[in-house]
Amino acid sequence: MIVLRSVSVIGIGETRMGKLTSKSIRMLIKEAGNKAIEDAGIEKERIQALYMGNYNASYWSIQSHIGALASETLEIGHIPTIRTEGACATGSLAFRQGLNAIAAGIYDVVLIGGVEKMTHKPIETITTGLASAADFEYEVNLGSTFPSLFAMIANRYFYEYGDVRKEMAMAAVQNHDNALLNSNAQMHKKITIDQVFNGFPVAHPLTVYDCSLVTDGAAFVVLAATEVAEKIAKKRVVEVIGTGHAGDSLTLAGKKSITTLEATVKAANEAYKMAGITAKDIGFAEVHDCFTITQIINTEDLGFFEKGRGAKALAEGKTALDGQIPINTSGGLKAKGHPIGATGLSQINEVVTQIRGEAGARQIKNANIGLNHNLGGTAATCVVNVFKGR
Amino acid sequence: MIVLRSVSVIGIGETRMGKLTSKSIRMLIKEAGNKAIEDAGIEKERIQALYMGNYNASYWSIQSHIGALASETLEIGHIPTIRTEGACATGSLAFRQGLNAIAAGIYDVVLIGGVEKMTHKPIETITTGLASAADFEYEVNLGSTFPSLFAMIANRYFYEYGDVRKEMAMAAVQNHDNALLNSNAQMHKKITIDQVFNGFPVAHPLTVYDCSLVTDGAAFVVLAATEVAEKIAKKRVVEVIGTGHAGDSLTLAGKKSITTLEATVKAANEAYKMAGITAKDIGFAEVHDCFTITQIINTEDLGFFEKGRGAKALAEGKTALDGQIPINTSGGLKAKGHPIGATGLSQINEVVTQIRGEAGARQIKNANIGLNHNLGGTAATCVVNVFKGR
Repeated sequence: MIVLRSVSVIGIGETRMGKLTSKSIRMLIKEAGNKAIEDAGIEKERIQALYMGNYNASYWSIQSHIGALASETLEIGHIPTIRTEGACATGSLAFRQGLNAIAAGIYDVVLIGGVEKMTHKPIETITTGLASAADFEYEVNLGSTFPSLFAMIANRYFYEYGDVRKEMAMAAVQNHDNALLNSNAQMHKKITIDQVFNGFPVAHPLTVYDCSLVTDGAAFVVLAATEVAEKIAKKRVVEVIGTGHAGDSLTLAGKKSITTLEATVKAANEAYKMAGITAKDIGFAEVHDCFTITQIINTEDLGFFEKGRGAKALAEGKTALDGQIPINTSGGLKAKGHPIGATGLSQINEVVTQIRGEAGARQIKNANIGLNHNLGGTAATCVVNVFKGR
Repeated sequence: MIVLRSVSVIGIGETRMGKLTSKSIRMLIKEAGNKAIEDAGIEKERIQALYMGNYNASYWSIQSHIGALASETLEIGHIPTIRTEGACATGSLAFRQGLNAIAAGIYDVVLIGGVEKMTHKPIETITTGLASAADFEYEVNLGSTFPSLFAMIANRYFYEYGDVRKEMAMAAVQNHDNALLNSNAQMHKKITIDQVFNGFPVAHPLTVYDCSLVTDGAAFVVLAATEVAEKIAKKRVVEVIGTGHAGDSLTLAGKKSITTLEATVKAANEAYKMAGITAKDIGFAEVHDCFTITQIINTEDLGFFEKGRGAKALAEGKTALDGQIPINTSGGLKAKGHPIGATGLSQINEVVTQIRGEAGARQIKNANIGLNHNLGGTAATCVVNVFKGR
């Protein structure tokens, strides 16, 4: 990398996550987008481009072209817009395109948003729409959906590293505990390990409590060149000190390993290298817990714990709010919610909130360097961003 | 703009456009992608990222996450991928993101592709999927589809600048004539002005001959930093000397004018400014002729002809293959075809083909500087790129 200039977050905003029956896509965009612009404390005229993450309104709401819809809804002028999609990493992909454009010097200030409206559809339609992020010909057509694919990952992990069923349940319990402290979270419900074990079976060993949620919601971020950010931001400027984007085969069968997710390793290494740090320097992280097993694997692939030791570290409390490296302080996809296109940006909302010291009851100590880790499909797409308070 | 480094096209490849019943999305990607890589003459290992334009496989083929699908299909390794969408400008948006990433110094060589598979669906499903690029709540729900929206544009144009019905028909005739010389074109059929007038009425004054086609197809481009391109390209390097991306309201009702499409004017000005040229320097162009009226308006908004004079210029032969500024030498969306996500990249394929002097029977003279102009929706999104042979 040769010409990157520094880029920072100056505004964040998100809706409450959940089954928001009375709110349309437009209303979700309006609420979260205006919050982020207000949080940045800038005039709307400053925003030069809009990057929107949306996974599947084309199918669930017969609404494509979400970039233009969002700019009109937010009344931010006739600026260039784009929609990105890369399964559940959709939001972070939008973030990265905006980041690149500022880094290239094309824009100084951009708005990045993510939105998903899912709960208005029957569950079969939701499942079909979600399954389209896997390989239709080679996986979905043969009966695979994401719970079954991640169940295979869990079973293989058990085979290679031992049974971590209990620790998976503990990940769910911990994320639900964190969500109790997050007013934007979809779930405000304490659960127990027993409940997870005895939950409705989805795909062995996963029960319904091991799975992330079906969620309506939107999250936005205002990004600016750091030199501009320092002049215009109302709140503490949070710099993006590293970013990485990596890929892997779309199919599970095409992967070298399904217990080490290569895209995570590569994206993290790219981000750490750019930031000039190692995993040890990361103070806390929002990681992509689409399923409980994924959270455990992620904390290993990101370099927080040795391979095969993620479950033990979790059981020892190392990822709790007061642990060595708090994970998913927001409640994660599991309990805060998983509004697909908004998820990456909601993770970034949480990281920035923690760095600013605005996380209230769930505020962690020493929240100076944090990351968000966002996966698409069975880790066919991964984006990792590292943030640091200035 | 401060830090852009020069970027060039070193490889192009596209499928034949049409109703390709026996070809899946995967097969279209494989064919066009490999053609482009072979045309560039580079090893697959050189490709560092893949940007895929796809408009609506999520709805028409229950297949999202096309970036990862394409990288696996093309066997180009586990590189970062993304899908972009911005209605019919989808392909050019993918192109622009890849361009920005190289300009920012993140990558040196990227592959950019677009694909759409539409003809396998019943016409109502195609129409519904296309209509989702308009505003579902405020337009589609009230009965509007794109032909009706562009018919309103045509009628308003008649009111402001006089009846150009005949010249619209001439645009269709000219594009069909050009397509006769393009072996990749969907239509190889000479038509007459009378046929256009007497065609099946779609939305007054548009008949079926005024409308672009429903098309399966894929088109790819290999982009490289020019300093790298000069070392590795097998064929003449074609530099992207200017690029512009602009937006407007998603709704037709939200626009200041519907006969001057502001997004085109802005995107063109941005691209011309970056290139240090004016419209007079453009030798030829592929412009977004989703409907015949759009082609006429585009040639005005791009600055080729004065406002209200585009139709006359066309009638005088100024946009013909041997005219002052040949337009849509490929046959355009009208006759080459309009595989939505691939359209922008197919336009770029044509511009590069002309600059290289490889256009055979439709080769124009002095093809040194050309542009592609790609619209989304009723010009809610516009991308313009200017190319020059090195």
